[in-house]
Amino acid sequence: MTTARFTAVYRVRADPASIAARAQAIAVEQSVEMPLSAIDSPHVLSDIVGQVEHIADHGGGLFEVRIGLAVATAGDDAGQWLKMLFGNTSLHADVVLHDVEIPPGLGAAFGGPRHGIGGLRRRGGAIGRAFTASALKPQGLPPARLAELAGRFARGGIDFVKDDHGLADQAYSPFAARVAACAEAIRQAASATGHPTRYVPSLSGDLDRMRRQLDAARAAGIDCVMIAPMIAGWSNVQALKAAYPDVAFFAHPTLGGAARIAPALLIGRLFRLLGADAVIFPNHGGRFGYTPQTCRRLAQRARAPWDAIRPSVPVPAGGMTLERVPEMLDFYGPDTMLLVGGNLLAARERLTEQTAAFVRAVATHLYR
Amino acid sequence: MTTARFTAVYRVRADPASIAARAQAIAVEQSVEMPLSAIDSPHVLSDIVGQVEHIADHGGGLFEVRIGLAVATAGDDAGQWLKMLFGNTSLHADVVLHDVEIPPGLGAAFGGPRHGIGGLRRRGGAIGRAFTASALKPQGLPPARLAELAGRFARGGIDFVKDDHGLADQAYSPFAARVAACAEAIRQAASATGHPTRYVPSLSGDLDRMRRQLDAARAAGIDCVMIAPMIAGWSNVQALKAAYPDVAFFAHPTLGGAARIAPALLIGRLFRLLGADAVIFPNHGGRFGYTPQTCRRLAQRARAPWDAIRPSVPVPAGGMTLERVPEMLDFYGPDTMLLVGGNLLAARERLTEQTAAFVRAVATHLYR
Repeated sequence: MTTARFTAVYRVRADPASIAARAQAIAVEQSVEMPLSAIDSPHVLSDIVGQVEHIADHGGGLFEVRIGLAVATAGDDAGQWLKMLFGNTSLHADVVLHDVEIPPGLGAAFGGPRHGIGGLRRRGGAIGRAFTASALKPQGLPPARLAELAGRFARGGIDFVKDDHGLADQAYSPFAARVAACAEAIRQAASATGHPTRYVPSLSGDLDRMRRQLDAARAAGIDCVMIAPMIAGWSNVQALKAAYPDVAFFAHPTLGGAARIAPALLIGRLFRLLGADAVIFPNHGGRFGYTPQTCRRLAQRARAPWDAIRPSVPVPAGGMTLERVPEMLDFYGPDTMLLVGGNLLAARERLTEQTAAFVRAVATHLYR
Repeated sequence: MTTARFTAVYRVRADPASIAARAQAIAVEQSVEMPLSAIDSPHVLSDIVGQVEHIADHGGGLFEVRIGLAVATAGDDAGQWLKMLFGNTSLHADVVLHDVEIPPGLGAAFGGPRHGIGGLRRRGGAIGRAFTASALKPQGLPPARLAELAGRFARGGIDFVKDDHGLADQAYSPFAARVAACAEAIRQAASATGHPTRYVPSLSGDLDRMRRQLDAARAAGIDCVMIAPMIAGWSNVQALKAAYPDVAFFAHPTLGGAARIAPALLIGRLFRLLGADAVIFPNHGGRFGYTPQTCRRLAQRARAPWDAIRPSVPVPAGGMTLERVPEMLDFYGPDTMLLVGGNLLAARERLTEQTAAFVRAVATHLYR
């Protein structure tokens, strides 16, 4: 019987004469971290030490190295798995984690989104079209002001109103007060419009604090929250997903440090595996520098069939405007959530009308 | 009254014509994330929006940009602070977080190490010389085998025996069984040698699981543990430091992805601020690629006087050998912990003698 392995795919800068040794060094670093000559356990040598499976020369000093790593070293803990996937190797400047291939058993242990695209369609009332979303900003406003904005977004008929990821539990806008006020404002607006707009508050702090925030959110009737896996710690995301099965999770990419882990992998695939029902990422041509190719690949990975793992909704964001809605819908298709924040807020007193125009643009779009 | 700010120092690649706009964009991204023209709160504009404090041209298209960010946006939560420090900006390929300057109030809120160099000297019995340490490896061995190794290290008179960071709570080596076995082996050896060798187990998993591990460790008489802040989540490190005041924390740099946050800042300064009593980092000339300059700067930042914040012990590691002990001691001085892992384990049946030689080399070194 062979040992169960997942395959980490690294892109390595090296010269042809040294790549074999470099690949072997990565295999050792990501498993036993010691000279193999000092290991006298046959079990460790055969079942635990990483194995170089393939090296491909991509030209120009770039190689793709595939390394098989034992599932047993990670167990069922996502944080530990992240360590074994890229922990120490992230400290090397010549390596990028490009991809990972996961045996069905590991995928089932992590489980992916509990609700996914289908579950979010049901709760946001978005059937047969792309989702619409906006963000509460700026940082620094008191709960009453944010709630007023939330209500105006909702009166425009939007599907989701999320906290800006900077909104936490600050003195000027405590989580409990903000969530109660925004949830109430959205509930009132939703009962006026008949559209089930959802408020998506952002979690922060340690696991205990995030649980208190989730309890307060659920008490206010909320069933969607946002979490930043690179800040919260992956094991804690896992714990919250297990403890709150009725809640849908939006993953925020903050601290994703895209230079060393390929964005399509981190956000599109790993955040999905971790259980994000929606994955927010910086769209091309906005405030961030992802290329169209990266964005397309990321969205594909978030939605592509993958064993029993549900698809996540890709949420391109970051400086998006109403004018870009048609182009973005043609680019991403209807299994997408468009998030327009500052550009709607810039409409100021016409916020509700501008939101309604956004909602209409998505609902009436004719895909090319 | 002016608002309390911390200063984030970024190194930005740009051309001279665009750097002012780029700096302003970072200031907005790390605070309100929306067009300033859409903000009508004078309080937010004056006290919350990031302020570009200084731009210095370092030549060759590299600029140093200093941005003042409001302390109020972070509050007292380390995870939220990390978001405001580098969250979204980490997604830009042209920026590295190079340094941060912290007002005394924020430093006091986070607090830094509770024990620091002085506290570790008392518990490890290392007076007037550098500390010695080694690591239990490889991943995959059962508790009894690791405990046997731990006992042999301790009989060599070493100060600290830490888990390899890959050791977690795997089926082949459950945390509770491993810690009980290793603690007992080290206790027996220590009573034979008279030297108070400490076992430093590695924490993993979500906050609840780490607390259960800490409880098990303390029940076994352990007062030092290792934690990986980039995996655990900074808020959880903070929570554990507050809940276990008698425990000293070693910070492991795994997933430190050094390319986007300067290592001297992340490991030497931020892990210290977070409360690490000892900070482990890859030494120059070992398995990792940090330069001697980076290592020197990192060690300086871990130990330099800093308001009321205690110094952390720098722990250069990663492929170190006995032969390098004199050179490393001259480079780092006595307020240092030398960690030699695989090179001692490679001595196999002579592990205790080799450990004793390591201990002797540190104890008898004559600094240049």
